Amino acid sequence: MKEQFLHCEEHLDQDMVKIEVNLDDITGEWLGYVMDKLFQAGANDVFYTPIYMKKNRPGIMLQLLCSQNKVDEMMNILFHETTTLGVRYYPLQVYRLSRNFIDIQTTWGKVTVKQGLYQGKVVQTAPEYESCRILAEKNDVPLKEIYLQVWEKISQLK
Amino acid sequence: MKEQFLHCEEHLDQDMVKIEVNLDDITGEWLGYVMDKLFQAGANDVFYTPIYMKKNRPGIMLQLLCSQNKVDEMMNILFHETTTLGVRYYPLQVYRLSRNFIDIQTTWGKVTVKQGLYQGKVVQTAPEYESCRILAEKNDVPLKEIYLQVWEKISQLK
Amino acid sequence: MKEQFLHCEEHLDQDMVKIEVNLDDITGEWLGYVMDKLFQAGANDVFYTPIYMKKNRPGIMLQLLCSQNKVDEMMNILFHETTTLGVRYYPLQVYRLSRNFIDIQTTWGKVTVKQGLYQGKVVQTAPEYESCRILAEKNDVPLKEIYLQVWEKISQLK
Amino acid sequence: MKEQFLHCEEHLDQDMVKIEVNLDDITGEWLGYVMDKLFQAGANDVFYTPIYMKKNRPGIMLQLLCSQNKVDEMMNILFHETTTLGVRYYPLQVYRLSRNFIDIQTTWGKVTVKQGLYQGKVVQTAPEYESCRILAEKNDVPLKEIYLQVWEKISQLK
Amino acid sequence: MKEQFLHCEEHLDQDMVKIEVNLDDITGEWLGYVMDKLFQAGANDVFYTPIYMKKNRPGIMLQLLCSQNKVDEMMNILFHETTTLGVRYYPLQVYRLSRNFIDIQTTWGKVTVKQGLYQGKVVQTAPEYESCRILAEKNDVPLKEIYLQVWEKISQLK
Amino acid sequence: MKEQFLHCEEHLDQDMVKIEVNLDDITGEWLGYVMDKLFQAGANDVFYTPIYMKKNRPGIMLQLLCSQNKVDEMMNILFHETTTLGVRYYPLQVYRLSRNFIDIQTTWGKVTVKQGLYQGKVVQTAPEYESCRILAEKNDVPLKEIYLQVWEKISQLK
Repeated sequence: MKEQFLHCEEHLDQDMVKIEVNLDDITGEWLGYVMDKLFQAGANDVFYTPIYMKKNRPGIMLQLLCSQNKVDEMMNILFHETTTLGVRYYPLQVYRLSRNFIDIQTTWGKVTVKQGLYQGKVVQTAPEYESCRILAEKNDVPLKEIYLQVWEKISQLK
Repeated sequence: MKEQFLHCEEHLDQDMVKIEVNLDDITGEWLGYVMDKLFQAGANDVFYTPIYMKKNRPGIMLQLLCSQNKVDEMMNILFHETTTLGVRYYPLQVYRLSRNFIDIQTTWGKVTVKQGLYQGKVVQTAPEYESCRILAEKNDVPLKEIYLQVWEKISQLK
Repeated sequence: MKEQFLHCEEHLDQDMVKIEVNLDDITGEWLGYVMDKLFQAGANDVFYTPIYMKKNRPGIMLQLLCSQNKVDEMMNILFHETTTLGVRYYPLQVYRLSRNFIDIQTTWGKVTVKQGLYQGKVVQTAPEYESCRILAEKNDVPLKEIYLQVWEKISQLK
Repeated sequence: MKEQFLHCEEHLDQDMVKIEVNLDDITGEWLGYVMDKLFQAGANDVFYTPIYMKKNRPGIMLQLLCSQNKVDEMMNILFHETTTLGVRYYPLQVYRLSRNFIDIQTTWGKVTVKQGLYQGKVVQTAPEYESCRILAEKNDVPLKEIYLQVWEKISQLK
Repeated sequence: MKEQFLHCEEHLDQDMVKIEVNLDDITGEWLGYVMDKLFQAGANDVFYTPIYMKKNRPGIMLQLLCSQNKVDEMMNILFHETTTLGVRYYPLQVYRLSRNFIDIQTTWGKVTVKQGLYQGKVVQTAPEYESCRILAEKNDVPLKEIYLQVWEKISQLK
Repeated sequence: MKEQFLHCEEHLDQDMVKIEVNLDDITGEWLGYVMDKLFQAGANDVFYTPIYMKKNRPGIMLQLLCSQNKVDEMMNILFHETTTLGVRYYPLQVYRLSRNFIDIQTTWGKVTVKQGLYQGKVVQTAPEYESCRILAEKNDVPLKEIYLQVWEKISQLK
């Protein structure tokens, strides 16, 4: 159980943009694909909201967060992989905690735990999903059990 | 302001079916169209729910209510107008109030009001949307004002 | 930390009914109120789903679960407190775990923990929200901290 | 039935901020709690939207509106009571109607009605939910009946 | 099959505004009406999102996009046709493709197809819904068949 | 381009069950995992709906479809991998089209197309997402282009 590295200091990121697209002429299948492409190209986050559009159309609003210098690349994907004729965006500020990663040894193997520090104090302690999932699948144990043991071990650290 | 006709007696309808289809490979545009077709063919109700399907796909669950003898016709529309390969359904019971329609005279013209009677007592009193909408548009008055005056007139009836 | 009582044995409940109502002419304010009334009258669960209804109307499907002998009382509330003219329902079966309650002592006071047993084995262990909330508010501590300490103490029980 | 006070003049509020957080590792129980905390700390509004996040995760976007000088306090709650590592925000303008409150006497007691004035004209007239709820519960009357009588009385004021 | 006109050049529109309103005291019926009014008055887009508001209220967030010089007119409609006491808004930028319209001859009549050009290359090719719908209804053919034939004809153009 | 095999005849499946669980004390992360587990264990479909639960909790209704003889296995997963104390279910009937698979040769490789036959007539023709996705990624071509070419080739088959 050792500290791995300090990801970054707590700070205000003034460089972020939210991009939005409304879609009523695309299928869910394609949208699942687009999300992957946008993440691969460096979007910080991509998510969908169900929206009610004109003419009784259930539509989707795609939203993504990226840094200013990624906007062109994101638009390029959106125009090629979705059916939209327009992409809207606006700047926003993001206040980010500093992050710290620690390793926790469980019965089934090592799990990485991400900590979030706010004003120097640990306020978030989250087992990394992917490392828990791998252990759960390899050992055929419920995911829940892995998480519970990680939380138990974390509490013993204090 | 006279009573028009007694639509039907309060009763338990044992003849209804709910049909459901999950869709992840159809556009919102087509879904708006399908809803109209299903209503035209005699569905009692048609509505959509946003659902989360596999592979990050935002999908839609189409649900419709119809009487047992309409099931074949509804399936026929669903297979021709949507992209589904299967349609599921199950029976349900519907308890229906008796309905009564009265006319209310407003400043802008006549509005029909639908009453619902439960155990012989009026529990619902709803201005018919279409008759209010027509007056609002013809007279360039907010829809809200039409409804408010209808409620006022209804209260004077008692 | 002692076992309080065995709520009930694991069993298949064959007596349950799901009631559904679609609503496009009621406000959110009233719906918040209706939910409370239905719970007070003994509904096992009440929940809302956003639905897309005809004429571009964002509507709500109210769903509730109750035992067969509660159906009349639930319909009575639905007809008086909502705007519907019909209520539909169908039977369903519910497989229920046996439940067990234990007390956990935390820094801030006692918390009740609900356990669920499946085939004799504890599969669920959930701090009761209300007892955690009360401690969080009384002691001005984040709710998260209460839960984390409860999980820690639970793990020490084993 | 007398005018109580003029809440504020119609104006453009240039001081507002929208804060957003995406959450896929928090439970609904905690989110219900967080909403209360944010309102207690002076948020103008707090609301949740269901979102589709990566890896088939149903998530929630928390949105809140507050004045610029409340941003730090809101972030403090968000970092302590949710599981987020980042909080984003952006400024917006709010055009607000002037508000007026009047008392309406009903069969069951007094109800406060909030009016909204746009360019000097009353465009909104809304019975205050809480005062209606209290009367409904105290007198065991459907909430609907309270509202209907309030609307009737309001119409007689003109 | 001839090119009709070049709608506009690819460009960045810096003149757009998003307007938002949260609503928990309006019915779905009225919201369907409001959407039509806003489109008629020149909104570029209007759409609804289901939101979770305080006191267990399922609410709706209305969002609309319009140009800066339409804001007053939109607010005028929102204050008269909805129940809100405040309207918030913020500027955004929209990157728009150039658009081109071509006619496609099908078995059942002519369909207009909208093309979107990104950096001089056609990236979007969408049959206009209304022209397809009219043919589908006049000829009693599934909408799907119309679209499929249009896509087939488009591919032969290349 | 040859017919591969006739998957099954058009028929009414009377053996299906829908299972439902309401969840307000589980995270989105875990839900993404549970969906995979249920599909792996043989669920015909698994999907999530956002629901509004008591105490302002945004929750999720998990729904899954499976054959009667899978119910025990599904419940076993649900009790181990989610936080629920009860699982409800009811039978339903599913009308299924017969299915047929054909291969389509594109510029980038072979794509499988699934056809659905209703009363002996092809009503659905859907390129298999996975085979399109693989070609799109291997050739760095927009997914949209793959689909468009498949539709073009299909139309030439007739």
